[in-house]
Amino acid sequence: MAYFSIGVDLGGTNLRVAAVDEQGAVLETIATGTAVARGRDTVIGEMCQAILALRDRFQQTAALVGVGIGVPGIIDMHTGMLRESPNLPGWGDYPVREEIERRLHTRIILENDANAAALGEFWMGAARDVPSMCMYTLGTGVGGGIVLDGHIWHGMTGMAGELGHNTVYPDGAPCGCGNVGCVEQYASATAIRRMAREAAGARESSTLGRALQADPHLSAQQIFRLAREGDAAAQGVFDRAGEALGIAVASCINALNLPMYVIGGGVSAAWEAFAPSMMKTIRARSFVYKATTPEDQTGQEGNATIITRALLGADAGLLGAARLPLMEQEHGGR
Amino acid sequence: MAYFSIGVDLGGTNLRVAAVDEQGAVLETIATGTAVARGRDTVIGEMCQAILALRDRFQQTAALVGVGIGVPGIIDMHTGMLRESPNLPGWGDYPVREEIERRLHTRIILENDANAAALGEFWMGAARDVPSMCMYTLGTGVGGGIVLDGHIWHGMTGMAGELGHNTVYPDGAPCGCGNVGCVEQYASATAIRRMAREAAGARESSTLGRALQADPHLSAQQIFRLAREGDAAAQGVFDRAGEALGIAVASCINALNLPMYVIGGGVSAAWEAFAPSMMKTIRARSFVYKATTPEDQTGQEGNATIITRALLGADAGLLGAARLPLMEQEHGGR
Repeated sequence: MAYFSIGVDLGGTNLRVAAVDEQGAVLETIATGTAVARGRDTVIGEMCQAILALRDRFQQTAALVGVGIGVPGIIDMHTGMLRESPNLPGWGDYPVREEIERRLHTRIILENDANAAALGEFWMGAARDVPSMCMYTLGTGVGGGIVLDGHIWHGMTGMAGELGHNTVYPDGAPCGCGNVGCVEQYASATAIRRMAREAAGARESSTLGRALQADPHLSAQQIFRLAREGDAAAQGVFDRAGEALGIAVASCINALNLPMYVIGGGVSAAWEAFAPSMMKTIRARSFVYKATTPEDQTGQEGNATIITRALLGADAGLLGAARLPLMEQEHGGR
Repeated sequence: MAYFSIGVDLGGTNLRVAAVDEQGAVLETIATGTAVARGRDTVIGEMCQAILALRDRFQQTAALVGVGIGVPGIIDMHTGMLRESPNLPGWGDYPVREEIERRLHTRIILENDANAAALGEFWMGAARDVPSMCMYTLGTGVGGGIVLDGHIWHGMTGMAGELGHNTVYPDGAPCGCGNVGCVEQYASATAIRRMAREAAGARESSTLGRALQADPHLSAQQIFRLAREGDAAAQGVFDRAGEALGIAVASCINALNLPMYVIGGGVSAAWEAFAPSMMKTIRARSFVYKATTPEDQTGQEGNATIITRALLGADAGLLGAARLPLMEQEHGGR
């Protein structure tokens, strides 16, 4: 091991920091309970402490190439600042990259968390054998990341891959972004819970209805369990999620004709519940999917388009973040 | 002029062949009435004759670098063959590129016609000052082409940019591709005519209704004229087309965050009729458009996202096709 890197996953519920070697092996992970909600200065303080601890630990055997940080928000690639976001109160117009570089005297790269997750799956996960891929991260919201010929596609201002706000039902549910019918309103954990409440309202006698009466805060994971146990109302919720995601993925396939589309994030644990309706929708709606992927050849050979689950779970974002400074190192500086 | 190239636009209604110099100046254009409908061998024969005529004319002053051919169909990039398509009966599984290369002894590059048009607008038209762009061609159908960092994005099998078959209304009009609610069913010339017939059926007393009774084959151009003259039913058709196109473009902006989206093809002549509803829809539905392009800054400065009309008309495809061998020349062979 000549080099190592540090990746940071700044999640809504906790902060994880890992030292990763150039082969993608995780050397050590520090997880703290520091939620974004505890405030910018607390988060940055604990993040820097964890980074320093890992640096001190491993720099005797290898050189630290830099720190990559996956952030749940939109980053101005030029200034290293974040746009103000509801998830990150107090972070807007604050020089995050500069401030951390000043404290640590090392190269810092900020990246949107869904982009980092896509790069992680591309490097070490489901997409490690393809040149390009797209990933949907189904969490509290729906994020997206696009990797083209080995590099995250950032677009003009670093905002590319905002796939969660693509319209799937033009007259659908209102979204916080100001649009209605975004895929995020059907395929996120938040949406699963909303659709379950709606379904239970319509069919109060179902198991789902009784479960929601007992616990109004039923999680997407618990709703998935009911679907797996055969509750039709709970299964209907995942059918709807799969259809919405299928409409979104079908359009992405037509536009980009990539070899692989990866579905990750917490909701992807319910793959068996939503994948059948998703795959049926993609086949019905994507001209390019049908042309590349005959019915008897779903993703295993030749130029078939592959739709698959993410493999790395929460480590995708951590590994992708750590990969960023390693890529710069390989390509000779910024 | 050291080099020149020959571009071919193999359209549904006629065949156009042009000699183009390295600066993008059209030296001479030969247009024949040879429609695709006259059959593969006739088309290829007349195409080769026109190419030879232009070559003989200009090769005394400059070297021919090759011939680019824009074709209304899907091309296998590796074999230079076309997939069988309803627009091109008899062309499937025929070695088009090899056959023309054999006859002409010069380098032939085949490209999808919508991709060629995008490259043409990128080279010499609306998008000549941006590094990346996406073009929608609104003709008999709706085609698409994506140029990323100066090169057509082909995807895994050359099918990328099939934007016309993206779903905008999941319960919408049936499409020849097998899907329902494709943007092609709302924003193509064919769709304008269908929607006009539907609108006239509902409001027979309108000017549109009377015009359709007098001429059931009313063209999209004529329907546009009625809209411009103030007919509400005709304007409603273009409002619908603009909304559908807006939903499609909004998702493309979210996914790719490109600096420019160009609307071309015959229907783009009706820009003033459909652009208002298209722009309103894009602003309402694209998170990335809103973030990059504040209301008081619609496309003229900084990092604003620009949505604009194509500039080159039918020459876009011809110039883009001619550009293909010139690009290979610049980048040193295949």
